[in-house]
Amino acid sequence: MFQFYMPTKVIIGRECVVKEGHLLKGIGNKALIVTGRYSAKKNGALEDVIKALEEQNMAYCVFDEVEENPSLETVEKAKNFGVAQGVDFVIGIGGGSPIDASKAIAVMLKHPELTGSTLIGGSLSSVPVIAVPTTAGTGTEVTQYAIVTDHQAKTKKNIGHTVFPQIAFVDAYYMKDMPKTITIHTAVDAMSHLVESYLSVKSNAVSEGFVVEGLKEWGKCIPQLLAGEFTLEGRECLMMASMLAGMAIAQTGTSLPHGMGYALTYYKGLPHGLANGILYKAYLRSFKDQSKVQKLHVLLGLESYEALEKMLNALCRVDIEISKEEIAFYTEEMCANKAKLQNHPEPISKEEVYKIYADSLL
Amino acid sequence: MFQFYMPTKVIIGRECVVKEGHLLKGIGNKALIVTGRYSAKKNGALEDVIKALEEQNMAYCVFDEVEENPSLETVEKAKNFGVAQGVDFVIGIGGGSPIDASKAIAVMLKHPELTGSTLIGGSLSSVPVIAVPTTAGTGTEVTQYAIVTDHQAKTKKNIGHTVFPQIAFVDAYYMKDMPKTITIHTAVDAMSHLVESYLSVKSNAVSEGFVVEGLKEWGKCIPQLLAGEFTLEGRECLMMASMLAGMAIAQTGTSLPHGMGYALTYYKGLPHGLANGILYKAYLRSFKDQSKVQKLHVLLGLESYEALEKMLNALCRVDIEISKEEIAFYTEEMCANKAKLQNHPEPISKEEVYKIYADSLL
Repeated sequence: MFQFYMPTKVIIGRECVVKEGHLLKGIGNKALIVTGRYSAKKNGALEDVIKALEEQNMAYCVFDEVEENPSLETVEKAKNFGVAQGVDFVIGIGGGSPIDASKAIAVMLKHPELTGSTLIGGSLSSVPVIAVPTTAGTGTEVTQYAIVTDHQAKTKKNIGHTVFPQIAFVDAYYMKDMPKTITIHTAVDAMSHLVESYLSVKSNAVSEGFVVEGLKEWGKCIPQLLAGEFTLEGRECLMMASMLAGMAIAQTGTSLPHGMGYALTYYKGLPHGLANGILYKAYLRSFKDQSKVQKLHVLLGLESYEALEKMLNALCRVDIEISKEEIAFYTEEMCANKAKLQNHPEPISKEEVYKIYADSLL
Repeated sequence: MFQFYMPTKVIIGRECVVKEGHLLKGIGNKALIVTGRYSAKKNGALEDVIKALEEQNMAYCVFDEVEENPSLETVEKAKNFGVAQGVDFVIGIGGGSPIDASKAIAVMLKHPELTGSTLIGGSLSSVPVIAVPTTAGTGTEVTQYAIVTDHQAKTKKNIGHTVFPQIAFVDAYYMKDMPKTITIHTAVDAMSHLVESYLSVKSNAVSEGFVVEGLKEWGKCIPQLLAGEFTLEGRECLMMASMLAGMAIAQTGTSLPHGMGYALTYYKGLPHGLANGILYKAYLRSFKDQSKVQKLHVLLGLESYEALEKMLNALCRVDIEISKEEIAFYTEEMCANKAKLQNHPEPISKEEVYKIYADSLL
């Protein structure tokens, strides 16, 4: 038995925010626009959203203090600002951080008694969320997940409540000036969603449809990723791959590399995509049954499995100091994350998890 | 620019109606169950739905008078019955006819002033619809379409209003005793949705994901379709293919064969799937650009394009009397159906439409 559910209305294409801004009509009276400090201003997305709101005569205010890996403190602060401003829906613009924060804030706006320390867990509703992704990585514009950083628990957590954006406006043009390393790390994140969904115990005909198309789109951009230079068409392939990846993990979730990468982000400051990607070669090698693993390069349009490993080597490089004791500690944390472990299709021991970290980082 | 929108929550698997019947909670107080006269009783679907409703202490009444290709008169009659019974949602059980009728009835229940003659066209809301498909053909459980027969206009029409079911319960077990010819004709309908979506001008990365997986699932059942004997696993492949096909045409719509088949159903009484299928060989040959057409057999897992044509010959046989004048008349009707024509990726003349009919039927 499995479920398919992905109720977000997705609009994909050039200038979709402005051209299809009429879809905002009726969603609410006043928007809380949630962004990071800079990128949404530089790439034009904030300006387009404001233009669309003004054309619909809708009010808005802006909270632009979302940091990378947003904390529970930040979402609580944004909620308090939104309550004071009398907003009734949220528009998240940016990468995973602002959009995930938007979802958390939207739950708190519907239930203003919640604080950062009482938000996580449960199945509460939210005020409507509109998502405008400006990176091609998380796919959060089409998932129910919102990952926040819990400094008390010293890790990243999904808030638990199911918050699909009501509308996602997907326009790769906002990525046109994105730096090379961010493009690559976020692209690797999208690839990791596709692969973890494909290899998940929860993989099914619907999620595989998204994965197969997503890997095809992602594969088209491999030469650009390796060269570190991107055309708009290449970025559109990555944005499409990222969205399809989101649709896939909305059904299946992610698994080991995501669970294992959280510690590398929290303790070592590795960007999320890189934190997963650096583990990938060893993760894929850890499969006792290689039958699906050995199809991945074909789905990506690569000539051999070696080419896939070579690509991972080229795209995922880290230079961090890490000890065996740290790895042992991360391994314990991972093995306590039952939600991620249960998506892995094979029994895996603590020693094997340790080995994936060690082979990747020592 | 394109949109993706398919908000139906789909539950797929054995005994899903009873096991996941708790999902009905909160949808309404009293259900209007809409079925045909016999099959939902024989295959156990009606009993399961009633069991699920009773477990949730929900009231219901049954309208079991939906004919194949339901008329506007029938949906109006069901609406009047539902209003008198005080229902507030609709559960459609069966093939395309009862579920499409359910959607039409659900719009009329929300707007009881509507009659059969004022229903079609517009974008009105509806009371919630739950779909329980018992054939693997239409995919209506995951589309916004509702096709009804307009005897005044002497054709089949989509009602226009967008009515996605709120929940679809998809359990191939209800097909276990379905006669061979109905299984084949409905399967051909599902295949035609997949192929028309794939070849549509509106085809995109998301719809192609559904198509590729759908053709793969459908392809697995080809030996059973040719032998005319079905296992439950084979029927599950067809049900999955039909659902994926629905998800695809929810995005792209159908095109020429569907437009051309309506006349064969209305005037010659051909079952819907067969009416499309009989045209398929000539339809596919009519493409000037054969590049996508010549990939179809690969996606279906067949060794050659000839094998695809041979399969169509075996599955789609008709024995009807038809004149050149009738074909000329159907051709005129088709060429007036701009919605279907505009999904076709190439300019096509009246002569070419005539030729597809003639090559298929004379």
